[in-house]
Amino acid sequence: MTPTISGTMPPRTIEWVGDLGGCAKLIDQTKLPGELTFLEIQDAPSMFEAILHLSVRGAPAIGIAGAMGAVLGVRDFSGECDAFLAKLDEVCDYLASSRPTAVNLQWGLDRMRRVARASGGDVSALKATLLAEADLIRDEDEAMCRAIGEHGEYLIGDGCGVLTHCNAGSLATSWFGTALAPMYVAHKKGRKFKVYADETRPLLQGSRLTAWELGQAGIDVTILCDNMAASLMKSGRVDLVITGADRIAANGDAANKIGTYGVALLAAAHGIPMYVAAPSSTFDLSLGDGDEIPIEERSADEIRRGFGLLTAPADAECYSPAFDITPAGLIRGLITERGVVEAPTHEKIAALLG
Amino acid sequence: MTPTISGTMPPRTIEWVGDLGGCAKLIDQTKLPGELTFLEIQDAPSMFEAILHLSVRGAPAIGIAGAMGAVLGVRDFSGECDAFLAKLDEVCDYLASSRPTAVNLQWGLDRMRRVARASGGDVSALKATLLAEADLIRDEDEAMCRAIGEHGEYLIGDGCGVLTHCNAGSLATSWFGTALAPMYVAHKKGRKFKVYADETRPLLQGSRLTAWELGQAGIDVTILCDNMAASLMKSGRVDLVITGADRIAANGDAANKIGTYGVALLAAAHGIPMYVAAPSSTFDLSLGDGDEIPIEERSADEIRRGFGLLTAPADAECYSPAFDITPAGLIRGLITERGVVEAPTHEKIAALLG
Repeated sequence: MTPTISGTMPPRTIEWVGDLGGCAKLIDQTKLPGELTFLEIQDAPSMFEAILHLSVRGAPAIGIAGAMGAVLGVRDFSGECDAFLAKLDEVCDYLASSRPTAVNLQWGLDRMRRVARASGGDVSALKATLLAEADLIRDEDEAMCRAIGEHGEYLIGDGCGVLTHCNAGSLATSWFGTALAPMYVAHKKGRKFKVYADETRPLLQGSRLTAWELGQAGIDVTILCDNMAASLMKSGRVDLVITGADRIAANGDAANKIGTYGVALLAAAHGIPMYVAAPSSTFDLSLGDGDEIPIEERSADEIRRGFGLLTAPADAECYSPAFDITPAGLIRGLITERGVVEAPTHEKIAALLG
Repeated sequence: MTPTISGTMPPRTIEWVGDLGGCAKLIDQTKLPGELTFLEIQDAPSMFEAILHLSVRGAPAIGIAGAMGAVLGVRDFSGECDAFLAKLDEVCDYLASSRPTAVNLQWGLDRMRRVARASGGDVSALKATLLAEADLIRDEDEAMCRAIGEHGEYLIGDGCGVLTHCNAGSLATSWFGTALAPMYVAHKKGRKFKVYADETRPLLQGSRLTAWELGQAGIDVTILCDNMAASLMKSGRVDLVITGADRIAANGDAANKIGTYGVALLAAAHGIPMYVAAPSSTFDLSLGDGDEIPIEERSADEIRRGFGLLTAPADAECYSPAFDITPAGLIRGLITERGVVEAPTHEKIAALLG
């Protein structure tokens, strides 16, 4: 993977540079939006730190980081195959403990363990296989994001105003993102449009990350506080809403960052179509509808002390769900790497995934 | 005015303590929500600073602060009546320049000038008249707020969940507030209910001020980020919304802090009644509807650097209106000191104010 940076895209979030003696190079997201710095990660403990301290975040990006961390953890190993596989397990267990609840991290590491066990050859060949697999995980993610962008870009014509919430962007994936992918593809095709990025309290992924990465690509982006979206829609500047999703039930109900459901209601009230962009792996057909999706409650201090400052009484009660559920009836279409499902229903989703 | 603090109320926001040799005592709102400290203001320059640096804020409270500042500026004057009135003009011009766009500040100062000119007596009598007038301005404000509370308290029954936005509270007035007045009155009557306070980006008046003052009174209050209101309403915990208003047009369209319109739409989508509480002086019958209400655009840095930290690209475009307009059709009732106007129309409002 050549580390080129296109003038119409933000830099790649994470990639492997060079051969087995190279390194994992990733954007240090803890420095955004102030400065763009890259970490060149040479060993597993450094990758552990990068994941733990959120230098890399977003489910797909963390999965890739884990896989590359596994390569880093075993590349200097010398010994027999059995000992190599035991070492790989140890490294994977170690990396998985950096963010124990990140499903994609576990998924990426499990894939590395499986491919090592399934492949023949000596330790040197195993190392090469693992590096190729980590690269493949990255390339598959990018291809999936690009496909979401290709399927969704028709929505964004010249002069269009698009509102998004949180960061379902390039920074959460290898490149292109999910909700932002149609915007990058439309931008590459030369279309002129405006993006409105909700700042997305409490963690401000919209103002810190979405506005930054779209700006890097030269896309016209404007930040607003979450409570300004209704006023903006009323003014006629929003033609379309696109958000990501964390989990989609069999009937099309979609869990996403807190505030998405409110944006969907406001869009409906103003006759603005709302689309949700996500890979097909986001669908969980074991869940009949959104009521079955568990909602994590976040720490009150993200609201009370979100910026290092005390912005509320120190012991104030807070309501702080991490996600909300947008019912399928408010979603005009689901944009996936397999195509767009308009007016999603149980049957259409089953057909897409079938 | 006795500086008592009731166990079921926050402390008074501003009051005069003692006789003409006394002082203006006010809550230093720049220290909230971290600590409760009072400023005892002894001269006009200190009041100028208190207004300038937002130790006192909120239109009614600033009007009272200006009037008390005028007393402080002339109480040590010795000389003839004409020179006294000239000195009063000078002090009033000076205080008015602390926040030139604050209509209520100008209003309070003009009232002080008028009463001095209209009253007879020597300089000593004039000083007493001015102190009495400043006290009267404060007492009238409190009576008006209490009346709003008395008219609106029937809405808040036991077990009720009330959501509010921004701070139309005691801290913005002499005491009791406007949107919060029905809550204080219901609380004094022993009713048990829960208040949900939107934090209200960008300046966080909800988390910094509303949550603080309700907590001081022993009212059960929970803070949420603005984008969590839809999820909270969906959960069934909100029975009622009450907000303040900055300006109300002849047809009942109401301008209030940015985000109020969004809350009104979300309430409508969940079948939750929305009330707007404001004194009758908030109505501007020269404006046919909300489209005629001018909307101030705030500095982008309130969004980009709102917490002292850079939380967005430093040069990012921002959309930051200070207010939005809630159309009368979304307002179940207007709560004023003269009574409640249900389902407001031009005719009902004219009858109320007539």
